[in-house]
Amino acid sequence: MKNAYIILADGFELIEAMAPYDVFCRGGINVKSVSISGNKTVSASNKVKVTADLLWDEADFTNADLIYLPGGYPGYENLGNDPKVGAIAKQQYESGKLLAAICGAPTVLLKNSIALGKTVTSHSCCADQMSAKYHYTGKPYEHDGNLWTAIGAGHSQDFAIALAQALAGDEAVAKIKKGMELKF
Amino acid sequence: MKNAYIILADGFELIEAMAPYDVFCRGGINVKSVSISGNKTVSASNKVKVTADLLWDEADFTNADLIYLPGGYPGYENLGNDPKVGAIAKQQYESGKLLAAICGAPTVLLKNSIALGKTVTSHSCCADQMSAKYHYTGKPYEHDGNLWTAIGAGHSQDFAIALAQALAGDEAVAKIKKGMELKF
Repeated sequence: MKNAYIILADGFELIEAMAPYDVFCRGGINVKSVSISGNKTVSASNKVKVTADLLWDEADFTNADLIYLPGGYPGYENLGNDPKVGAIAKQQYESGKLLAAICGAPTVLLKNSIALGKTVTSHSCCADQMSAKYHYTGKPYEHDGNLWTAIGAGHSQDFAIALAQALAGDEAVAKIKKGMELKF
Repeated sequence: MKNAYIILADGFELIEAMAPYDVFCRGGINVKSVSISGNKTVSASNKVKVTADLLWDEADFTNADLIYLPGGYPGYENLGNDPKVGAIAKQQYESGKLLAAICGAPTVLLKNSIALGKTVTSHSCCADQMSAKYHYTGKPYEHDGNLWTAIGAGHSQDFAIALAQALAGDEAVAKIKKGMELKF
Protein backbone atom coordinates (compact mmCIF):
# COMPACT_ATOMS: atom_id res chain seq x y z
CA MET A 1 0.00 0.00 0.00
CA LYS A 2 1.28 3.45 -0.93
CA ASN A 3 1.62 6.23 1.64
CA ALA A 4 0.56 9.85 1.05
CA TYR A 5 0.97 12.74 3.47
CA ILE A 6 -1.05 15.94 3.16
CA ILE A 7 0.59 18.78 5.08
CA LEU A 8 -1.82 21.14 6.85
CA ALA A 9 -1.03 24.65 8.01
CA ASP A 10 -3.62 27.06 9.38
CA GLY A 11 -5.22 28.81 6.42
CA PHE A 12 -5.13 25.79 4.09
CA GLU A 13 -7.58 25.67 1.21
CA LEU A 14 -10.34 23.24 2.15
CA ILE A 15 -11.01 21.49 -1.19
CA GLU A 16 -7.33 21.43 -2.07
CA ALA A 17 -6.64 19.32 1.02
CA MET A 18 -9.87 17.36 1.38
CA ALA A 19 -10.36 16.31 -2.27
CA PRO A 20 -7.04 14.44 -2.41
CA TYR A 21 -7.68 12.97 1.04
CA ASP A 22 -10.99 11.57 -0.16
CA VAL A 23 -9.70 10.44 -3.56
CA PHE A 24 -6.62 8.72 -2.09
CA CYS A 25 -8.72 6.86 0.50
CA ARG A 26 -11.03 5.65 -2.25
CA GLY A 27 -7.99 4.43 -4.21
CA GLY A 28 -6.65 2.33 -1.33
CA ILE A 29 -3.78 4.71 -0.65
CA ASN A 30 -2.83 5.11 3.01
CA VAL A 31 -3.29 8.85 3.49
CA LYS A 32 -2.48 10.88 6.57
CA SER A 33 -2.92 14.58 7.19
CA VAL A 34 -0.14 16.19 9.22
CA SER A 35 -0.47 19.43 11.15
CA ILE A 36 2.61 21.65 11.23
CA SER A 37 1.30 23.85 14.04
CA GLY A 38 1.65 21.68 17.15
CA ASN A 39 -2.14 21.36 17.36
CA LYS A 40 -4.14 18.68 15.56
CA THR A 41 -7.04 21.08 15.00
CA VAL A 42 -6.27 23.11 11.90
CA SER A 43 -8.38 25.94 10.46
CA ALA A 44 -8.93 26.20 6.73
CA SER A 45 -8.80 29.58 4.98
CA ASN A 46 -12.62 29.63 5.20
CA LYS A 47 -12.38 28.82 8.96
CA VAL A 48 -13.61 25.21 8.75
CA LYS A 49 -11.79 23.26 11.46
CA VAL A 50 -10.40 19.85 10.53
CA THR A 51 -8.62 17.45 12.86
CA ALA A 52 -5.32 16.28 11.39
CA ASP A 53 -4.38 12.61 11.73
CA LEU A 54 -0.89 13.38 12.99
CA LEU A 55 1.21 16.08 14.57
CA TRP A 56 4.43 16.75 12.69
CA ASP A 57 6.54 14.85 15.23
CA GLU A 58 4.30 11.79 14.90
CA ALA A 59 4.79 11.54 11.13
CA ASP A 60 7.42 9.24 9.62
CA PHE A 61 8.06 10.65 6.17
CA THR A 62 10.68 8.01 5.33
CA ASN A 63 7.85 5.85 3.93
CA ALA A 64 6.19 8.74 2.04
CA ASP A 65 5.43 7.86 -1.57
CA LEU A 66 3.83 11.30 -1.90
CA ILE A 67 4.04 14.53 0.04
CA TYR A 68 1.28 16.95 -0.94
CA LEU A 69 1.21 20.68 -0.14
CA PRO A 70 -2.20 22.41 -0.36
CA GLY A 71 -2.52 26.10 -1.09
CA GLY A 72 -4.92 28.56 0.49
CA TYR A 73 -4.15 31.88 2.12
CA PRO A 74 -2.35 32.22 4.47
CA GLY A 75 -1.80 28.43 4.51
CA TYR A 76 0.75 28.37 1.73
CA GLU A 77 2.67 31.23 3.34
CA ASN A 78 2.66 29.35 6.64
CA LEU A 79 4.09 26.31 4.83
CA GLY A 80 6.70 28.47 3.10
CA ASN A 81 7.77 30.15 6.34
CA ASP A 82 8.36 26.85 8.15
CA PRO A 83 11.87 25.48 7.59
CA LYS A 84 10.89 21.91 8.56
CA VAL A 85 8.36 21.84 5.71
CA GLY A 86 10.93 23.08 3.19
CA ALA A 87 13.47 20.53 4.41
CA ILE A 88 11.11 17.55 4.09
CA ALA A 89 9.84 18.73 0.68
CA LYS A 90 13.43 19.04 -0.57
CA GLN A 91 14.34 15.60 0.79
CA GLN A 92 11.24 14.08 -0.82
CA TYR A 93 12.01 15.63 -4.21
CA GLU A 94 15.68 14.71 -4.13
CA SER A 95 14.84 11.11 -3.19
CA GLY A 96 12.89 10.82 -6.47
CA LYS A 97 9.55 10.23 -4.75
CA LEU A 98 6.46 12.27 -5.58
CA LEU A 99 6.15 15.85 -4.36
CA ALA A 100 2.96 17.76 -5.15
CA ALA A 101 1.94 21.39 -4.64
CA ILE A 102 -1.22 23.23 -5.70
CA CYS A 103 -2.38 26.86 -5.98
CA GLY A 104 -0.01 29.05 -3.93
CA ALA A 105 1.98 26.12 -2.55
CA PRO A 106 4.41 25.90 -5.49
CA THR A 107 5.97 29.02 -3.93
CA VAL A 108 7.14 26.72 -1.11
CA LEU A 109 9.32 25.02 -3.72
CA LEU A 110 10.64 28.39 -4.88
CA LYS A 111 11.44 29.55 -1.34
CA ASN A 112 13.43 26.38 -0.77
CA SER A 113 15.10 26.26 -4.21
CA ILE A 114 13.51 22.89 -4.99
CA ALA A 115 13.49 21.64 -8.61
CA LEU A 116 14.45 25.03 -10.08
CA GLY A 117 14.03 25.17 -13.84
CA LYS A 118 11.41 22.44 -13.99
CA THR A 119 8.02 22.79 -15.69
CA VAL A 120 5.33 23.90 -13.24
CA THR A 121 1.99 25.59 -12.84
CA SER A 122 0.52 27.49 -9.88
CA HIS A 123 -2.24 29.94 -9.06
CA SER A 124 -2.05 32.90 -11.42
CA CYS A 125 -1.36 35.21 -8.46
CA CYS A 126 2.07 33.52 -8.17
CA ALA A 127 2.78 33.24 -11.90
CA ASP A 128 5.31 36.07 -12.05
CA GLN A 129 7.46 34.88 -9.18
CA MET A 130 7.30 31.25 -10.35
CA SER A 131 8.16 32.23 -13.94
CA ALA A 132 11.42 33.79 -12.78
CA LYS A 133 12.84 30.43 -11.70
CA TYR A 134 10.70 27.77 -13.42
CA HIS A 135 9.16 27.02 -16.77
CA TYR A 136 5.64 28.20 -15.86
CA THR A 137 2.77 27.03 -18.07
CA GLY A 138 -0.46 28.05 -16.29
CA LYS A 139 -2.05 24.71 -17.19
CA PRO A 140 -4.53 23.05 -14.77
CA TYR A 141 -1.79 20.67 -13.66
CA GLU A 142 1.70 19.64 -14.65
CA HIS A 143 4.18 16.98 -13.83
CA ASP A 144 7.86 17.05 -14.59
CA GLY A 145 9.55 13.91 -13.35
CA ASN A 146 8.49 13.45 -9.73
CA LEU A 147 7.33 17.05 -9.32
CA TRP A 148 3.58 17.62 -9.62
CA THR A 149 1.91 21.03 -9.51
CA ALA A 150 -1.63 22.32 -10.01
CA ILE A 151 -3.17 25.73 -10.61
CA GLY A 152 -5.93 25.98 -8.04
CA ALA A 153 -8.87 24.67 -6.03
CA GLY A 154 -11.15 23.99 -9.00
CA HIS A 155 -8.76 21.36 -10.29
CA SER A 156 -8.10 19.61 -6.95
CA GLN A 157 -10.10 16.51 -7.79
CA ASP A 158 -8.59 15.94 -11.24
CA PHE A 159 -5.12 16.55 -9.83
CA ALA A 160 -5.78 14.04 -7.04
CA ILE A 161 -6.96 11.44 -9.54
CA ALA A 162 -3.83 11.98 -11.66
CA LEU A 163 -1.69 11.52 -8.54
CA ALA A 164 -3.63 8.38 -7.60
CA GLN A 165 -2.97 7.06 -11.09
CA ALA A 166 0.77 7.67 -10.65
CA LEU A 167 0.80 6.10 -7.18
CA ALA A 168 -1.63 3.22 -7.48
CA GLY A 169 -2.45 2.65 -11.17
CA ASP A 170 -5.45 1.93 -13.35
CA GLU A 171 -7.37 -0.35 -11.01
CA ALA A 172 -7.28 2.19 -8.19
CA VAL A 173 -8.46 4.96 -10.51
CA ALA A 174 -11.29 2.80 -11.84
CA LYS A 175 -12.44 2.20 -8.25
CA ILE A 176 -12.23 5.91 -7.43
CA LYS A 177 -14.22 6.94 -10.50
CA LYS A 178 -16.87 4.27 -9.99
CA GLY A 179 -17.50 5.30 -6.37
CA MET A 180 -17.55 9.00 -7.24
CA GLU A 181 -19.85 8.45 -10.25
CA LEU A 182 -17.33 9.79 -12.72
CA LYS A 183 -17.37 8.41 -16.25
CA PHE A 184 -14.36 6.30 -17.25
CA MET B 1 -26.75 37.76 1.83
CA LYS B 2 -28.15 34.29 1.21
CA ASN B 3 -28.03 31.57 3.88
CA ALA B 4 -27.09 27.95 3.22
CA TYR B 5 -27.06 25.12 5.75
CA ILE B 6 -25.11 21.90 5.18
CA ILE B 7 -26.39 19.13 7.42
CA LEU B 8 -23.70 16.81 8.82
CA ALA B 9 -24.28 13.32 10.20
CA ASP B 10 -21.48 10.94 11.15
CA GLY B 11 -20.40 9.10 8.01
CA PHE B 12 -20.92 12.06 5.65
CA GLU B 13 -19.00 12.11 2.38
CA LEU B 14 -16.13 14.56 2.77
CA ILE B 15 -16.04 16.21 -0.69
CA GLU B 16 -19.83 16.26 -0.91
CA ALA B 17 -19.97 18.46 2.21
CA MET B 18 -16.72 20.43 1.93
CA ALA B 19 -16.89 21.36 -1.77
CA PRO B 20 -20.20 23.24 -1.38
CA TYR B 21 -18.97 24.80 1.86
CA ASP B 22 -15.91 26.15 0.07
CA VAL B 23 -17.77 27.20 -3.08
CA PHE B 24 -20.55 28.96 -1.16
CA CYS B 25 -18.05 30.89 0.98
CA ARG B 26 -16.25 32.01 -2.16
CA GLY B 27 -19.59 33.20 -3.59
CA GLY B 28 -20.40 35.37 -0.59
CA ILE B 29 -23.11 33.02 0.65
CA ASN B 30 -23.43 32.73 4.43
CA VAL B 31 -22.87 28.99 4.92
CA LYS B 32 -23.12 27.06 8.16
CA SER B 33 -22.58 23.37 8.79
CA VAL B 34 -24.97 21.83 11.31
CA SER B 35 -24.30 18.63 13.24
CA ILE B 36 -27.30 16.42 13.90
CA SER B 37 -25.54 14.28 16.52
CA GLY B 38 -25.34 16.55 19.57
CA ASN B 39 -21.58 16.85 19.10
CA LYS B 40 -19.92 19.48 16.93
CA THR B 41 -17.17 17.06 15.94
CA VAL B 42 -18.45 14.96 13.07
CA SER B 43 -16.60 12.08 11.38
CA ALA B 44 -16.72 11.73 7.60
CA SER B 45 -17.13 8.31 5.99
CA ASN B 46 -13.36 8.25 5.56
CA LYS B 47 -12.92 9.16 9.26
CA VAL B 48 -11.77 12.76 8.76
CA LYS B 49 -13.09 14.79 11.68
CA VAL B 50 -14.63 18.18 10.91
CA THR B 51 -15.98 20.65 13.46
CA ALA B 52 -19.50 21.78 12.55
CA ASP B 53 -20.37 25.45 12.96
CA LEU B 54 -23.59 24.72 14.81
CA LEU B 55 -25.38 22.07 16.80
CA TRP B 56 -28.87 21.35 15.54
CA ASP B 57 -30.51 23.32 18.35
CA GLU B 58 -28.37 26.37 17.55
CA ALA B 59 -29.51 26.53 13.91
CA ASP B 60 -32.35 28.79 12.82
CA PHE B 61 -33.57 27.29 9.57
CA THR B 62 -36.30 29.90 9.14
CA ASN B 63 -33.78 32.03 7.21
CA ALA B 64 -32.45 29.10 5.13
CA ASP B 65 -32.34 29.87 1.43
CA LEU B 66 -30.82 26.42 0.91
CA ILE B 67 -30.67 23.24 2.96
CA TYR B 68 -28.11 20.79 1.58
CA LEU B 69 -27.90 17.08 2.45
CA PRO B 70 -24.58 15.34 1.68
CA GLY B 71 -24.37 11.63 1.01
CA GLY B 72 -21.71 9.19 2.21
CA TYR B 73 -22.19 5.93 4.03
CA PRO B 74 -23.56 5.66 6.66
CA GLY B 75 -24.10 9.44 6.71
CA TYR B 76 -27.11 9.43 4.42
CA GLU B 77 -28.71 6.62 6.40
CA ASN B 78 -28.13 8.59 9.60
CA LEU B 79 -29.86 11.58 7.98
CA GLY B 80 -32.73 9.37 6.80
CA ASN B 81 -33.20 7.81 10.21
CA ASP B 82 -33.48 11.14 12.00
CA PRO B 83 -37.05 12.51 12.02
CA LYS B 84 -35.94 16.09 12.71
CA VAL B 85 -33.93 16.09 9.45
CA GLY B 86 -36.89 14.78 7.47
CA ALA B 87 -39.19 17.37 9.03
CA ILE B 88 -36.94 20.32 8.23
CA ALA B 89 -36.27 19.05 4.69
CA LYS B 90 -40.02 18.73 4.08
CA GLN B 91 -40.69 22.19 5.50
CA GLN B 92 -37.92 23.66 3.34
CA TYR B 93 -39.26 22.03 0.18
CA GLU B 94 -42.85 22.96 0.87
CA SER B 95 -41.89 26.58 1.55
CA GLY B 96 -40.53 26.79 -2.01
CA LYS B 97 -36.94 27.42 -0.91
CA LEU B 98 -34.03 25.35 -2.24
CA LEU B 99 -33.51 21.81 -0.98
CA ALA B 100 -30.50 19.86 -2.27
CA ALA B 101 -29.39 16.24 -1.82
CA ILE B 102 -26.46 14.37 -3.38
CA CYS B 103 -25.36 10.74 -3.75
CA GLY B 104 -27.32 8.60 -1.28
CA ALA B 105 -29.06 11.57 0.35
CA PRO B 106 -31.97 11.73 -2.14
CA THR B 107 -33.21 8.65 -0.23
CA VAL B 108 -33.88 11.01 2.68
CA LEU B 109 -36.49 12.65 0.43
CA LEU B 110 -37.98 9.26 -0.38
CA LYS B 111 -38.16 8.19 3.27
CA ASN B 112 -40.02 11.39 4.09
CA SER B 113 -42.27 11.42 0.98
CA ILE B 114 -40.86 14.76 -0.14
CA ALA B 115 -41.45 15.91 -3.74
CA LEU B 116 -42.63 12.50 -4.94
CA GLY B 117 -42.86 12.24 -8.71
CA LYS B 118 -40.32 14.97 -9.38
CA THR B 119 -37.27 14.57 -11.64
CA VAL B 120 -34.20 13.52 -9.66
CA THR B 121 -30.84 11.84 -9.80
CA SER B 122 -28.88 10.01 -7.07
CA HIS B 123 -26.01 7.58 -6.69
CA SER B 124 -26.60 4.55 -8.91
CA CYS B 125 -26.76 2.33 -5.81
CA CYS B 126 -30.09 4.02 -4.98
CA ALA B 127 -31.44 4.22 -8.54
CA ASP B 128 -33.95 1.38 -8.18
CA GLN B 129 -35.57 2.65 -5.00
CA MET B 130 -35.62 6.24 -6.27
CA SER B 131 -37.09 5.18 -9.64
CA ALA B 132 -40.10 3.65 -7.90
CA LYS B 133 -41.30 7.05 -6.67
CA TYR B 134 -39.51 9.66 -8.80
CA HIS B 135 -38.57 10.32 -12.40
CA TYR B 136 -34.96 9.15 -12.07
CA THR B 137 -32.49 10.27 -14.77
CA GLY B 138 -29.02 9.28 -13.54
CA LYS B 139 -27.61 12.59 -14.80
CA PRO B 140 -24.76 14.31 -12.89
CA TYR B 141 -27.27 16.72 -11.40
CA GLU B 142 -30.89 17.72 -11.78
CA HIS B 143 -33.20 20.41 -10.62
CA ASP B 144 -36.95 20.35 -10.73
CA GLY B 145 -38.40 23.52 -9.30
CA ASN B 146 -36.74 24.08 -5.93
CA LEU B 147 -35.52 20.48 -5.62
CA TRP B 148 -31.88 19.90 -6.54
CA THR B 149 -30.21 16.48 -6.65
CA ALA B 150 -26.81 15.17 -7.72
CA ILE B 151 -25.38 11.75 -8.49
CA GLY B 152 -22.21 11.56 -6.42
CA ALA B 153 -18.98 12.91 -5.00
CA GLY B 154 -17.23 13.50 -8.33
CA HIS B 155 -19.82 16.11 -9.25
CA SER B 156 -19.91 17.94 -5.90
CA GLN B 157 -18.09 21.01 -7.15
CA ASP B 158 -20.18 21.50 -10.31
CA PHE B 159 -23.35 20.93 -8.29
CA ALA B 160 -22.23 23.51 -5.73
CA ILE B 161 -21.50 26.06 -8.47
CA ALA B 162 -24.94 25.46 -9.99
CA LEU B 163 -26.53 26.00 -6.57
CA ALA B 164 -24.44 29.16 -6.05
CA GLN B 165 -25.72 30.39 -9.42
CA ALA B 166 -29.31 29.80 -8.32
CA LEU B 167 -28.74 31.47 -4.94
CA ALA B 168 -26.41 34.32 -5.74
CA GLY B 169 -26.24 34.80 -9.52
CA ASP B 170 -23.66 35.45 -12.20
CA GLU B 171 -21.38 37.79 -10.30
CA ALA B 172 -20.96 35.32 -7.43
CA VAL B 173 -20.19 32.50 -9.84
CA ALA B 174 -17.64 34.62 -11.70
CA LYS B 175 -15.89 35.30 -8.39
CA ILE B 176 -15.95 31.61 -7.44
CA LYS B 177 -14.52 30.51 -10.78
CA LYS B 178 -11.83 33.17 -10.81
CA GLY B 179 -10.58 32.23 -7.34
CA MET B 180 -10.66 28.52 -8.11
CA GLU B 181 -8.93 28.99 -11.47
CA LEU B 182 -11.84 27.60 -13.46
CA LYS B 183 -12.41 28.90 -16.96
CA PHE B 184 -15.53 30.97 -17.50
